[in-house]
Amino acid sequence: MLEINADRLLSDLYELRKIGTYKTGVHRPTLSPDDMTSRHWLVDKLKAFGHDAEIDGIANVVGRAPGDGPHILSGSHIETQNQAGWLDGALGVIYALEAARAVAESGAFGGSGVDVIAFADEEGHFADMPGSHSWVGALAEEKIDKAVDRTHGMPLRDALAKAGLAGRPRLQMPKDRYLCFLEAHIEQGGWLEANDLTIGVVTSIVGIWQYRIVIEGSQNHAGTTMMSMRRDAGVAATRLLQTIEREFPKVAAELSVWTAGRITLDPGAPAIVPGGAEILFQFRDAESAVLDRMHIKLQELVDAENADGPCGVRLEVVSTNKPAVMDDTLKAAFTSAAEQVCPGRHTLMPSGAGHDARTLAPYIPCGMLFVPSIDGVSHHWSENTADADIVAGCRVFAGAIGDLLAAARG
Amino acid sequence: MLEINADRLLSDLYELRKIGTYKTGVHRPTLSPDDMTSRHWLVDKLKAFGHDAEIDGIANVVGRAPGDGPHILSGSHIETQNQAGWLDGALGVIYALEAARAVAESGAFGGSGVDVIAFADEEGHFADMPGSHSWVGALAEEKIDKAVDRTHGMPLRDALAKAGLAGRPRLQMPKDRYLCFLEAHIEQGGWLEANDLTIGVVTSIVGIWQYRIVIEGSQNHAGTTMMSMRRDAGVAATRLLQTIEREFPKVAAELSVWTAGRITLDPGAPAIVPGGAEILFQFRDAESAVLDRMHIKLQELVDAENADGPCGVRLEVVSTNKPAVMDDTLKAAFTSAAEQVCPGRHTLMPSGAGHDARTLAPYIPCGMLFVPSIDGVSHHWSENTADADIVAGCRVFAGAIGDLLAAARG
Repeated sequence: MLEINADRLLSDLYELRKIGTYKTGVHRPTLSPDDMTSRHWLVDKLKAFGHDAEIDGIANVVGRAPGDGPHILSGSHIETQNQAGWLDGALGVIYALEAARAVAESGAFGGSGVDVIAFADEEGHFADMPGSHSWVGALAEEKIDKAVDRTHGMPLRDALAKAGLAGRPRLQMPKDRYLCFLEAHIEQGGWLEANDLTIGVVTSIVGIWQYRIVIEGSQNHAGTTMMSMRRDAGVAATRLLQTIEREFPKVAAELSVWTAGRITLDPGAPAIVPGGAEILFQFRDAESAVLDRMHIKLQELVDAENADGPCGVRLEVVSTNKPAVMDDTLKAAFTSAAEQVCPGRHTLMPSGAGHDARTLAPYIPCGMLFVPSIDGVSHHWSENTADADIVAGCRVFAGAIGDLLAAARG
Repeated sequence: MLEINADRLLSDLYELRKIGTYKTGVHRPTLSPDDMTSRHWLVDKLKAFGHDAEIDGIANVVGRAPGDGPHILSGSHIETQNQAGWLDGALGVIYALEAARAVAESGAFGGSGVDVIAFADEEGHFADMPGSHSWVGALAEEKIDKAVDRTHGMPLRDALAKAGLAGRPRLQMPKDRYLCFLEAHIEQGGWLEANDLTIGVVTSIVGIWQYRIVIEGSQNHAGTTMMSMRRDAGVAATRLLQTIEREFPKVAAELSVWTAGRITLDPGAPAIVPGGAEILFQFRDAESAVLDRMHIKLQELVDAENADGPCGVRLEVVSTNKPAVMDDTLKAAFTSAAEQVCPGRHTLMPSGAGHDARTLAPYIPCGMLFVPSIDGVSHHWSENTADADIVAGCRVFAGAIGDLLAAARG
C-alpha cells in the first residue's frame, strides 16, 4: 500500500491555516489577497517536487505530474466561506498534494502520477462553482461578466484583474489523460462521529430540489376580525409545514433531509392577520426515485392544503438536479484501502452537500472520501477534525490512489 | 327622540373626505398640512353654531357648548393611517358634531349640551394615543420630547411647531363637567355585516396581551445534518403554533382572537437548518378571566414544547392591558335608541381594536357604538360604510344623547 508522510501532511495543513487566520479557522474568500497567497503557496509546493504548476484565468491552480502514462486528477478548493473553517476544501487539496508526492517519491509509477487541482470559488462567493465548470468547459464568458461578489458586490472581472489574472487563458480538462477524479473532504455533518467511524466512502452527491411555497390569505385587523372569518396565511403555512413533518418520513429514505429555511409572513406586523406567506423549502436525497417520491408527496400536501382552504396555496419549483453517482470501482478502492487502515470503521454514505466532484461526474468517473467533522460543525471558524482522523483519511486516500494507478498500469 | 339632519351629516362627511383625498379614501397623517386643515375646518364648523372651539398644544380640537348644565363629551379622532379610509375616526367626530348641533337646535336642553373633541394621533403616528392621554392628564412632557413620526422620523416637537402649535397650552378634561364620554366608530371587522346587523353596542374594549416567543435550536448545514440529529428552531416554531391553534379554542371565549403576526427564522437561508426562531404573538378578549386562561394555556404549551425538546423555548411578555368596560347605563341608552331606529338589528359586542375611549374609561363613564364596515375592511383606502348605515348610526347615537341629557336634567 502506498504510504504517505504524515508529518509533512499535517505540517502543510498547518502552514496553509496561517494564511488568513481567523480565530482557530481562516478567512480566505475567493480572490482575496489571502486566497491568492494560498494559491501561489500551492504552486510553489507543487513545483518543489517537479510538478508543472500554474494559476489559470479563473484562478484554478493546476499542477501536472510528469509522464504520459495514466494519471489521476485529484483536489478540491482552497478558498473558504467568510470567517470559516480551516479544513473545508483545504483538506482535499493537501491530500491530493501529499498523494502526488507519495506517488512521485515511490518510484513505482514511472510515467503515471497525480495531477493536483484547486478549483476556484467552490464556496460560491461569485457564482455556482465557476472553477470546476470552467475546467469541464461549461462556463460561458457571459457568466463571468455578470458575476459579482455576494458580500461586497465586486464584479468577478475586477476581482480577477486585481488578482493579476486578467487575460490569462482558462485551462480545460485534457481528453483521455485521466482515469478518474478523486476528492477528499470533511463530512460537514455529524454522522461519522455519531457512529464512531473514521472514513465515509461517498456513494453519490445528493440531488437538491428547491421550492417556494406561496400562500395567499386575507390581510385583516388582528383585533376586529373574528377567528371564524379569517384567512390567515401564517396559520396555513404552519399547518402545511407540520403536515410535511408528519408525512415526509413515510416516503423519504433513511438519509433523506428536508428543510424549511425561511418563513416570511406579509406584512409581518404584530397586530395584522397575515395576508400572505412564503416558505423556502428544499429536500435532498442520493436517489432519483426518492426525490421523485418526495416531490409527488409535497405537491399532494400543497394541493390538499389549497383544496381544504381557507387560503390559496401553490408550489413553485426553484431548482432541481440529479444525484451525481460515484463510480463503483473507485468506491471499492476506497473501501478496500479503508479496511486496511481502519478495519470496520468505514461506511458507504451519500454526500448531503454539493462539491466540485458533482460538476465533474458527468465527464469522468468520480470518487469521494469523507473524514469526520468534530460535532458536525462546518462553515464556522470552530470547524475541526482530529489529527489522527486527518492522517488516517490521507492514508486511505493515497492508498487507493496507489492501488488504482497500479491496476491501470497492469 | 332627538332627531338629526341626515343631509347635513353626510354633506359634512363628504366635505371632510375632500381634505387629503387618496383614491376613495384619505391620507391625513397626524400634524400633516391636510390634518391641520381638517382640524381648522372642524373648529370653524363648531364655531358656526355657537361652540367655543380651539386647537390645543397637542393638536386636540375641543369644542365647548355654552351653559353650565350637565354636558356630554363626544368625539373620536380626525387624522388617519397613511393612505387609509375616510371614516375611521372621522365618523365619530362628525356624529358628535351633528349630535351637538341637534341638541343646540332643539332648544329643549338649555344650559346642557355636547362638547365635541377630536383627539390627536389616535392612529399612533407619533405615540400611543397622545391626544386622549394628554386630555386625562396622563401625558408627560418627556414623552412628547421623545416621540418621532414612525414614517418619516420627524420629532413630535418639530411637527407641533411646524403646525403652529408650539407653546400652546394642553387642555385637560374639566372636573365634574361631563356625564360621560361617547364615541362612535366603524366596526373595522365583518361581524355586523355577516350577521345582517346595523348597530353594535360595545360592551368593552378588549385587553391586548402581546408576547415574543423565542426558540433556540442549532444552526446546521441543511444537506449534511441528518434529520435525527437536528434541533430545527423552525420546526419547533410551527409545531408550537399548530398546538396553539388546536388548544386555544378550549380556553378561549366565543369572540377571543389570537394572532401570530410574524415568524422570523435565523439565519433564514434556504440551505441552513434554522438555529433560532422568534414569533410575535398576541391575543385579545373583553374579559380578564378569559385573558388569564389564555395566558396560562400559552405558558403551559411553551413549557411543554421546551420540555419535550429538542429546542429551548421561552415566553417573553411584551405588554398586557386590562379590558376597558363600557358603562351599563350608556349601553342601555344606545340599545334603547337602536331598538327604535332599527328594531332587532343591533347587538352587544366587544371592540377588538383600541380606541380613545379606552384611555378615558378609567376617568369617566364611557360608551361606544359601531356601524358596519363593508367587507370588514379598515386601515385601507377602500374602507367604506353604506350611507343608510351611516345615517342610522347617527340617529341612534344622537337619540341616546338626547335621552341621556333629558334624564340628567330630570
